[in-house]
Amino acid sequence: MKRENEKEGMVVTAWEVSGEIDYQKLMEGFGTRPLTKDLVERIARQAGYVHPQLRRGIFFSHRDLDWWLDTYERGEPVGLYTGRGPSGPVHLGHLLPWYFTRYLQEAFDAELYFQMTDDEKFLVRPDLTLDQTMGYTYDNSLDLIAVGLRPGKTHIISDTENIDLLYRLGLQVAKRVTYSTIKAIFGLTDSDNIGIIWFPAIQAVPCFLQSELEDRMVAVLIPAAIDQDPYWRMTRDIAEKLGYYKPAQIHSKFLPGLGKGGKMSASQPETAIFTTDPPEEAAKKVMGAFTGGRATVQEQRELGGEPSVCSIFAYYFFLFEEEDDELHELEMRCRSGSIACGECKARLAERVERFLTVFQARREEARDVLQEFLVGPGGGKR
Amino acid sequence: MKRENEKEGMVVTAWEVSGEIDYQKLMEGFGTRPLTKDLVERIARQAGYVHPQLRRGIFFSHRDLDWWLDTYERGEPVGLYTGRGPSGPVHLGHLLPWYFTRYLQEAFDAELYFQMTDDEKFLVRPDLTLDQTMGYTYDNSLDLIAVGLRPGKTHIISDTENIDLLYRLGLQVAKRVTYSTIKAIFGLTDSDNIGIIWFPAIQAVPCFLQSELEDRMVAVLIPAAIDQDPYWRMTRDIAEKLGYYKPAQIHSKFLPGLGKGGKMSASQPETAIFTTDPPEEAAKKVMGAFTGGRATVQEQRELGGEPSVCSIFAYYFFLFEEEDDELHELEMRCRSGSIACGECKARLAERVERFLTVFQARREEARDVLQEFLVGPGGGKR
Repeated sequence: MKRENEKEGMVVTAWEVSGEIDYQKLMEGFGTRPLTKDLVERIARQAGYVHPQLRRGIFFSHRDLDWWLDTYERGEPVGLYTGRGPSGPVHLGHLLPWYFTRYLQEAFDAELYFQMTDDEKFLVRPDLTLDQTMGYTYDNSLDLIAVGLRPGKTHIISDTENIDLLYRLGLQVAKRVTYSTIKAIFGLTDSDNIGIIWFPAIQAVPCFLQSELEDRMVAVLIPAAIDQDPYWRMTRDIAEKLGYYKPAQIHSKFLPGLGKGGKMSASQPETAIFTTDPPEEAAKKVMGAFTGGRATVQEQRELGGEPSVCSIFAYYFFLFEEEDDELHELEMRCRSGSIACGECKARLAERVERFLTVFQARREEARDVLQEFLVGPGGGKR
Repeated sequence: MKRENEKEGMVVTAWEVSGEIDYQKLMEGFGTRPLTKDLVERIARQAGYVHPQLRRGIFFSHRDLDWWLDTYERGEPVGLYTGRGPSGPVHLGHLLPWYFTRYLQEAFDAELYFQMTDDEKFLVRPDLTLDQTMGYTYDNSLDLIAVGLRPGKTHIISDTENIDLLYRLGLQVAKRVTYSTIKAIFGLTDSDNIGIIWFPAIQAVPCFLQSELEDRMVAVLIPAAIDQDPYWRMTRDIAEKLGYYKPAQIHSKFLPGLGKGGKMSASQPETAIFTTDPPEEAAKKVMGAFTGGRATVQEQRELGGEPSVCSIFAYYFFLFEEEDDELHELEMRCRSGSIACGECKARLAERVERFLTVFQARREEARDVLQEFLVGPGGGKR
């Protein structure tokens, strides 16, 4: 259960790796709590192992996770909820929390409600039609299934396709949330459209949906990147008024992009690896990535590289080197100047290529089982 | 086609009758146009007769009715749309435009989409649950059917039950309407809930629904009281951007209450006649109504009554005396003091009692055919 990087005095943390985002400040600003060793151990006890994303502090913060675990340990029903805004192809940054969600689903044998907010993406993106965002719901579902979430226990909701299931609860939420609140939480202005003002009510619904469908109180945990926290603060404020539990959360950091600083973003396609990139294209993106290398080979040998600002190192850290010993050795070799950026990139490029080849095959297989995952009218299967 | 009350120099108009509402000012303020004799004649030509509500100027204003009639006369598809906020039992004031809608449906052989805004009423009324407003959708549908709208051509939509049919179009509307616009049109404030800010998008949808379902351009006319006009102004602004026709409107005045001035309102049950009132109770309400009578019998005989401020006279005018000659004679007798208020009320009470007895029987029969009127999932029948 020990966090290897702490034990071995490894200085690189995801805070440093991701550079520009101050997660400590985010946590303080949002009023969330740090994920303690004790909580990590309680999760690992159910799972049988500590997930690398816990070990490395990629999931780092929470709200009421202790309560959620207590509930589970008392033998009461628990569930999971997360989602995606389907505005384009999925990249590795999206997969990160989905792999962790799979780990939680297995550990707690939990139902997962996965919301595709094709309404939201249509409303906020001037360049996207509703047909396009709904198309991405199907497309992105293939990625979700390829991650290995469990059929029969994973329920993919499209806001537009499944609005019959969501609207009434959405109204219950909306009646209790004023525009002032939404403005304060999300920084909306009077020039925003009335759809996007309403939407937070719909994003809140899956927090209560399982309780509603099973007609019993289900404690829901939301694994998601920390930028989604505002939605849950709003939801937590009204949950008990509606007769449901407040949703608990576990928050992750962002996978950095291949450029200098910032999270992986679909709006900079050259710095993002999409699951649908031809593997050899993705390898090329890796080879063109920003590194922590020095200006010359000479300098590199003398001063060593800087893994803490290196996007390539971040990829090993977040996804492509699960062995802590190996990661540590790589860091040491980089710092000492004994590995050149080219070699390090080529190794990662090969891993990325291999990963995508396997993932894309799974993604194709997902087409055959898609209907088992999509929620149908009235909450049944399609 | 002549308007009898004009011909015979009758001074009572609905403006005067209803007292406090200045419809001329409303029309000017909203920028709508007066219903001309020519338009009335064009409607009457299709119907075979001039409806009393046209003859008496109860429907008095419009937007683009001429265009709608042109479209019909060219043999292109037209439809009707109106609705109700189901927040309680139906009263006679609600029935007024529904009878007129039946007249239009018969005259133009048109499909009617009738929206029950059970979401809106839940969102605006702190005292109502969603189950209650949805319950009123069913209850109020019985009244609508009892009015005699045509089965097979009348489609009752519940916003909550039929949201699968409405949501996508609602999103298309919502994306093009800002909070600023809604604030200006409806006078909402930042303390209003986010549901009621979103709702105007849903109220706009049936303007386009028939076009969408039939996959062709349908010109829609909305018969409704003039207070609903703001919704259609908003809808007209965005209709063409969405590729649909602007909805046309024909506006009615309000049935006054049985009290002194103001429209009939469910919030003052003693001054409203509900379709579910026991007929003898309704008769009692009529007997207790505000009249244009004088303080003493003596004065009444000398000065005569004032039909222009009399709620009883208004009821004859709006609903219970369709014969213009009879109405005129009643007015003359009142003004000359030759009929006492007691007699006049007793005569109306009897008519109201008789009307309700027949209506309530029809309303009970409506239970058997309700499912033929309610829209089912995906737009089919339930």
